[in-house]
Amino acid sequence: MKFLAEINVMPQKEILDPQGKAVKIGLQNLGINQVSDARIGKHIQLQLEAGSEAEANQIVTDACKKLLANIIMEEFEFKLIQL
Amino acid sequence: MKFLAEINVMPQKEILDPQGKAVKIGLQNLGINQVSDARIGKHIQLQLEAGSEAEANQIVTDACKKLLANIIMEEFEFKLIQL
Repeated sequence: MKFLAEINVMPQKEILDPQGKAVKIGLQNLGINQVSDARIGKHIQLQLEAGSEAEANQIVTDACKKLLANIIMEEFEFKLIQL
Repeated sequence: MKFLAEINVMPQKEILDPQGKAVKIGLQNLGINQVSDARIGKHIQLQLEAGSEAEANQIVTDACKKLLANIIMEEFEFKLIQL
């Protein structure tokens, strides 16, 4: 079975996000003043082969914990789409 | 009305994604061989104030085109959640 994993890795809520702050200021400089908060993270798409959805879930969790997210400063969430 | 915009900015499909390639190799080095393709982009959360969903849609499209995405090399999509 082929799956597409759509993963979001975001800075944890308690942690300052200087990139998000820069984006907010950049938007204001462009005249877009309606934005009160901006947070920036990564969006990762993985295509993978797995025997079941549970196995795919396990592989993606593993990939996030070992490589894609720094779990001290970031949190991740993902959804799986069967292709 | 308050909205949360969940934006994904990804490299266009025709464009090489060296960061994605590096992630694929990194996963293989960790023994995760089931991943056949990886693409890396940005995930951006904006909180904004708008009179209607159509107005929020317009503000976020504007922000993406003017600042958040380089539309020559990247594509963006987003969904709006009313808070």
